[in-house]
Amino acid sequence: MNTAYDQLVARLKRAHTLYTVADLLGWDEQVNLPPDSADVRATQHAVMAETQHAAATDPAISRLLDELEGGTPARQPTLSDSGQAVVLRYARRDYDRAVKLPADFVAEKAAHSSHAYHAWAEAKAKDDFAGYAPFLEKHLAFARREAELLGWDDRPYDYAIDRHDPGLTAASIAALFTELKHGLVPLVTAIRASRVHAETSLFKKFPIEAQRAFLREVTERLGFNYRRGRIDVSLHPFCSGTGADIRMTTRFDPDNPLDSLFSSIHETGHGLYEQGLPREHLGTALGQAVGMAVHESQSRLWENQVARSRAFWKYFEPKFRALFPAQLAAVSSEALYLAVNAVEPTLIRVDADEVHYNLHILLRFELEQQLFSGELAVRDLPTAWNALCTELLGQTPANNREGVLQDVHWSSGGFGYFPSYCLGNMMAAQLWATASRVLPGLEEDFARGDFTRLLRWLRENIHTQGRQYDTLELVRRVTGEELGPKHLLAYLRERYGRLYLG
Amino acid sequence: MNTAYDQLVARLKRAHTLYTVADLLGWDEQVNLPPDSADVRATQHAVMAETQHAAATDPAISRLLDELEGGTPARQPTLSDSGQAVVLRYARRDYDRAVKLPADFVAEKAAHSSHAYHAWAEAKAKDDFAGYAPFLEKHLAFARREAELLGWDDRPYDYAIDRHDPGLTAASIAALFTELKHGLVPLVTAIRASRVHAETSLFKKFPIEAQRAFLREVTERLGFNYRRGRIDVSLHPFCSGTGADIRMTTRFDPDNPLDSLFSSIHETGHGLYEQGLPREHLGTALGQAVGMAVHESQSRLWENQVARSRAFWKYFEPKFRALFPAQLAAVSSEALYLAVNAVEPTLIRVDADEVHYNLHILLRFELEQQLFSGELAVRDLPTAWNALCTELLGQTPANNREGVLQDVHWSSGGFGYFPSYCLGNMMAAQLWATASRVLPGLEEDFARGDFTRLLRWLRENIHTQGRQYDTLELVRRVTGEELGPKHLLAYLRERYGRLYLG
Repeated sequence: MNTAYDQLVARLKRAHTLYTVADLLGWDEQVNLPPDSADVRATQHAVMAETQHAAATDPAISRLLDELEGGTPARQPTLSDSGQAVVLRYARRDYDRAVKLPADFVAEKAAHSSHAYHAWAEAKAKDDFAGYAPFLEKHLAFARREAELLGWDDRPYDYAIDRHDPGLTAASIAALFTELKHGLVPLVTAIRASRVHAETSLFKKFPIEAQRAFLREVTERLGFNYRRGRIDVSLHPFCSGTGADIRMTTRFDPDNPLDSLFSSIHETGHGLYEQGLPREHLGTALGQAVGMAVHESQSRLWENQVARSRAFWKYFEPKFRALFPAQLAAVSSEALYLAVNAVEPTLIRVDADEVHYNLHILLRFELEQQLFSGELAVRDLPTAWNALCTELLGQTPANNREGVLQDVHWSSGGFGYFPSYCLGNMMAAQLWATASRVLPGLEEDFARGDFTRLLRWLRENIHTQGRQYDTLELVRRVTGEELGPKHLLAYLRERYGRLYLG
Repeated sequence: MNTAYDQLVARLKRAHTLYTVADLLGWDEQVNLPPDSADVRATQHAVMAETQHAAATDPAISRLLDELEGGTPARQPTLSDSGQAVVLRYARRDYDRAVKLPADFVAEKAAHSSHAYHAWAEAKAKDDFAGYAPFLEKHLAFARREAELLGWDDRPYDYAIDRHDPGLTAASIAALFTELKHGLVPLVTAIRASRVHAETSLFKKFPIEAQRAFLREVTERLGFNYRRGRIDVSLHPFCSGTGADIRMTTRFDPDNPLDSLFSSIHETGHGLYEQGLPREHLGTALGQAVGMAVHESQSRLWENQVARSRAFWKYFEPKFRALFPAQLAAVSSEALYLAVNAVEPTLIRVDADEVHYNLHILLRFELEQQLFSGELAVRDLPTAWNALCTELLGQTPANNREGVLQDVHWSSGGFGYFPSYCLGNMMAAQLWATASRVLPGLEEDFARGDFTRLLRWLRENIHTQGRQYDTLELVRRVTGEELGPKHLLAYLRERYGRLYLG
């Protein structure tokens, strides 16, 4: 540990380790925290946020960066010059951002996130938007203040987006979403008029232990490494942790085994990305996911393109039936496959099928823009939500639990995250088109239960790349095209057109 | 937050919060950590130890202490002068200790503890003492070095004891243990010659879910607050966390339901103490347990004096039978009570009955003294263990798994902890004698499932006292006598003499 570069990396890794500790507190909060201990957790989050902030603003980082940016830096012998340049670029960006945020701002925001999460959970349980609104307003104020402190004063929403997906803006996303909407609405309309209907109500009384065994088998077969990860139960499924210790969650419903299965496969996609990041670079930009859109492309690709395919079910259907012989006795293979690809409008984003899903995101993106522009006040959010929901989804929430209170994201100040889901869907379809072209016979692999060629391709082209390229550049390099909705629309028309439009 | 005292307390609480985060990492390590993620956890422990150390050696603490010790300090309006004096005394002690330990020493020791824990678990699984010995040697070197840095150079084992039980020394403990041994050996010999035998082999196939339900009912009835705590499964039962979020663990064996029940009640005793500390003082000495001996007095009192009593089983036996009607059909009430109070020599401390238990501690205390004096080398530990085990317990371990590798404590450098168990047993019996005197009819309460008067008495006399008095002073104040083995011996003779010696 002698060169300036090594010293810098040691400090970045130290800050990263503190981040992983705070991240584990977040996981534990949603998986294990006793109900009355939320106050302790808020204090812990605040102290850890301050501590992380102190590590990220360590003056030695600035001094080392100055030194390394100034001359011809000595790098690690195993690292390329361009690799080192990536590390330095993000280290500089993160340092400059961190020093602009006062420590007490960081601590207050962290404590507020913890309080707001519990306020949201309570408001959702009681259908009490008014009780939650002040927390949301405070989060919006924090987001604006943060953007201002970082010099994005006139574009706070762009800053919120950039935090999740460096290089993207509200305007660039709006252009992509408009194009997507034009293609999507006619498809949705046609499918909703179809006489084909999935019989999801056929699924009853699937014992949870057997569901757990099945999803464990599936996710392990897809490549998730349970020696460096685990899966638990939480209210809202998520995936946290870094490559060396990944914590996924799901939830179980005896009458809806496909929900826990597909949410687990979704989180497995996230987990595979994190487990595929180069471990030796964890803590630097070379060991970090590009952004949330790329992350979602991984979760959605495994969840949808892979696990909703006929080939996947050719392999797994006999195993599924072996675990649930009585429950599936009256379900034909075709009915099962249709249930896996059920298209049914729903008010709840996380229950939405692939065809409707993006409309849920369009709704949230629109409302976030209006909240940040000041066009929409928090108190008017339920009305605006319901109106837009009626327009886009043809259904109106009967209460806020199935409307504006349904998602956890805003309760932690996670504005600008929702667009990543839709961008991830586009990217997943675009990556899938490329993978299918360059790896002929992929679906035959799946039918044999072999997912290794696809995983290896994603490892090489996405996972091991870290942050070498930003979102749009990565898509360009891997697929040879700009990111766009073309492949997603073609994929949806193909899969769902065939099933529902004959 | 204006007075010097308030500023000091804020800093102590910040350091304490970092401690609680590190403590949660430790809990998670034993309950949840994926098998290959131990490397990450070691790094996290090291960084958190450094961070805690930085908080504990914050120069502001020294400055504030100087100021407060110098003049007539302004205290919190709700706090007595003597209360403030306690906080200052321990803050000074902890600060002076912390500044004498270099940050890299603290980080190295924390990382080593994590590595050594996993090395111990592996060595135990493989019965490979040689693989574990270097880790133990390094821990001993750390312990000596720490004592030296803190000015206890010539008394490293006394320092190890003082860390757990301020005010006690190897010599004072040895005197108590010798007296105990003289009284205990004849009792053990007599009981081992008795023709009465508990039929613990009658217990077979108790479903784990029902065991879980029963221990939950029992521990809740004893007063454990599950809204600020939980119970999980780990290899070795323990209780961690502070008053505001207590994490207990147990383990389940279908053929030994009393093991998980009594280990849970034991941990509940620890949990009740922590939950009874004054929450507003958490992070200062007024909100901190006196030491491990007092802690063990609480766990052992609930486990033994309370939960092995006839009165306890009068209330719980019908509930136990209702959950396990078939399994208990052939077990009479008297056989059940005898099984609860089975006396059977065993090589494993955590499986030991009350009568033999203290002999296991005497063994460990003797070996720790020899290790620290240099009389015994780590490589000779298995031989010395087995010889002493034969002498004290009349049995010789067939391998190191049931010998020197059985306990987790040394793997985290926890020397000087074992004596606390035995001191806790003495204290529990002494407290119980006092409680029975000042609260007539306690057992009648238990027979009705009412444990509130006992808990309230412990809350008032022990839990809410924090560190106002040290171990020996607390015992003196509450029981009116010096700590000694008299009451423990009388209790054992009474309970076990009646059962086994007719």
